[in-house]
Amino acid sequence: MFPETGTGSLSVAPAATAVFTAVLTEGPLSRVTLARRLGLSSAAVTKAARPLIDMGYLHELAATERTGPGAGRPASPLAIRSDREFFVGVKITADELIGVVCDLGARVRAAAHRPLTDTGVEAVLTELGRLVDELLDGPDDYRQRTRRLGLAVSGDVDRSTGLVRYSPFLRWHNVRLRERASLLTGLSVTVENDVKALTAAEHWFGEGVGVESFALVTVGTGIGCGLVVNGRLVSGAHGVAGEVGHIGIDATGPSCHCGGRGCVESIAGTHAIVEQARDRTGRSDLTIDDAVALARAGDERVTAVFARAGNAIGTGIAAVANLVGPARIVVSGEGLAVYDLFEPHIRAGFERQAFGAAAQCPLSIRPLPFEEWARGAAAVSIQSLVVS
Amino acid sequence: MFPETGTGSLSVAPAATAVFTAVLTEGPLSRVTLARRLGLSSAAVTKAARPLIDMGYLHELAATERTGPGAGRPASPLAIRSDREFFVGVKITADELIGVVCDLGARVRAAAHRPLTDTGVEAVLTELGRLVDELLDGPDDYRQRTRRLGLAVSGDVDRSTGLVRYSPFLRWHNVRLRERASLLTGLSVTVENDVKALTAAEHWFGEGVGVESFALVTVGTGIGCGLVVNGRLVSGAHGVAGEVGHIGIDATGPSCHCGGRGCVESIAGTHAIVEQARDRTGRSDLTIDDAVALARAGDERVTAVFARAGNAIGTGIAAVANLVGPARIVVSGEGLAVYDLFEPHIRAGFERQAFGAAAQCPLSIRPLPFEEWARGAAAVSIQSLVVS
Repeated sequence: MFPETGTGSLSVAPAATAVFTAVLTEGPLSRVTLARRLGLSSAAVTKAARPLIDMGYLHELAATERTGPGAGRPASPLAIRSDREFFVGVKITADELIGVVCDLGARVRAAAHRPLTDTGVEAVLTELGRLVDELLDGPDDYRQRTRRLGLAVSGDVDRSTGLVRYSPFLRWHNVRLRERASLLTGLSVTVENDVKALTAAEHWFGEGVGVESFALVTVGTGIGCGLVVNGRLVSGAHGVAGEVGHIGIDATGPSCHCGGRGCVESIAGTHAIVEQARDRTGRSDLTIDDAVALARAGDERVTAVFARAGNAIGTGIAAVANLVGPARIVVSGEGLAVYDLFEPHIRAGFERQAFGAAAQCPLSIRPLPFEEWARGAAAVSIQSLVVS
Repeated sequence: MFPETGTGSLSVAPAATAVFTAVLTEGPLSRVTLARRLGLSSAAVTKAARPLIDMGYLHELAATERTGPGAGRPASPLAIRSDREFFVGVKITADELIGVVCDLGARVRAAAHRPLTDTGVEAVLTELGRLVDELLDGPDDYRQRTRRLGLAVSGDVDRSTGLVRYSPFLRWHNVRLRERASLLTGLSVTVENDVKALTAAEHWFGEGVGVESFALVTVGTGIGCGLVVNGRLVSGAHGVAGEVGHIGIDATGPSCHCGGRGCVESIAGTHAIVEQARDRTGRSDLTIDDAVALARAGDERVTAVFARAGNAIGTGIAAVANLVGPARIVVSGEGLAVYDLFEPHIRAGFERQAFGAAAQCPLSIRPLPFEEWARGAAAVSIQSLVVS
């Protein structure tokens, strides 16, 4: 164990935090590169790195011959020691808990699921305790090097206090989840909105590394978006941000549960797709799986539903590009399990509505395994090492 | 004159820049308040302020008795000396140049216009020279305390180099405006996109003071938006940001000149309003002034056009609120000269489409005198004192 501040962050100087964050997200990096990147002297970098090396978080890679300017002087890049500490991440859904153990580099080392039959707080906590035990007490014995647990929940979450203000799927109101989970597990707990957690993982360990701005759009029952602008997550002055699902893109479109009209989600959310497919086929008991099967079999009534949905998503994503101009946009989520049905229409909608050079913004459209949500929760827990 | 760096900014320590910026935008402020706000010691604030006082930019107000905590100890707030330096701001449109002289607090002290009959670069520069002379050599003799000129141009402008890459209304391509205007006037020149300049004025001297995020939406021939998120202007990784006019809000709406469909601008831009009013009245020679006159006289064919336009603008503004959650949104621009025709429909569209707490975002809807654009240009010039 090493010294911690009251908030559980590493008790090291600001320069050390900067060095650690840079190596963690972009490493391995030489001291020369770190000094240039962070505007510090080489001596300051060396001094800042020392306690992190002593604590086992960083280590020096073997010296390599450098080429280019300064060639001949060996550089020993600093790298993280990824098995120095492990982090549990759990995504809480209405049906199940999905958990992972990640190393310091956010690589998934173990995963486990537990079904939920009851979304009451007590029932969820009981299963959470079992899941954490299962993950930490396996053959690899992660427990002795695990001190932190990240939880991801859909809905309105206050990361700073660990309070779940409102989670519609769980029907939770004002649940002090951090406090409860800390008492239960003895771990240091972070709680974050699931889309923001996924955005954090992408920002530190994915396609968001090294860019000032990017967006992550998630497609599924809801359609959400995490935004990083000017290097920081956008949280919204009134508590709302990234609601790409509620941009109105069709003035004569369907009414949305939010009170708006023609919202992206009212056309492209899972429920909306099922409704439209039922209408068009006359089969009132049709499920999303049926709709996918019909579309894949070439039923034009249903392929048109996915085409309209993909176009709506692409139009919403173009609004993100036109307004904030992110360096890149990742499109993912459980809805992208049917990637083949969506992808060309998302791109068509985006290309039609992206303004001028905004069309140059690369879209990464890809499926999202459910463990990724849990990895997002673990990533927030890793961030909490250095960001309180 | 006082020392300058290569970029023309004040050559003072970072703490002095922070003190100056805080007093300029939020002052007068006591040293105690400044110290707390900036995370500096009182001694550091005193040290930072000294050269600014010596150079005449700041002065101490008379000591006032304080109330509340610390009562009894007199505080001498620091304030800017607003007539220490003057700044010329000029907005270049296709029809005319609009110029102002502002003081250090961005208060307009003089204004002048010059018509343009030719938008060629040489013709515009000739008129610009005359306008600057007229503004600076008047009875108040601003010239001796004016060293800076801000220019605002619509289109794609690179503020860092002063290059106008493309301005559709002026039909300019790659004009080195900063260089040309500096040679012509002998002043230190900044060049900025007009909407961004207006946003800068609002950020430092208007409704954006003291908030981490806000948006300024301009309504007129084009519909644009300046965004400040996480305390800084959003410029877009691919050079595009704030294009609220090209969000697609009507899937079955008109084609837009940008290639999109149902863009806000294709429904609510000045040309779109004229086109729709012509269609509905059958008067192919109808102007925007005619349309306004008919609407004010209660012609329902034309009031419906303004209602649809206002709703489209409100839907676009709601997209801004849903995505980035600004603390407040200012809606202005020459189109708001017909404020009465737009305002209720902008609010209705916004309220319908703003998601949850995003509807709490205050909208300031107000007309924009044309001098305000020139003041925006001057504000960027004032910023260049401390921000290169």
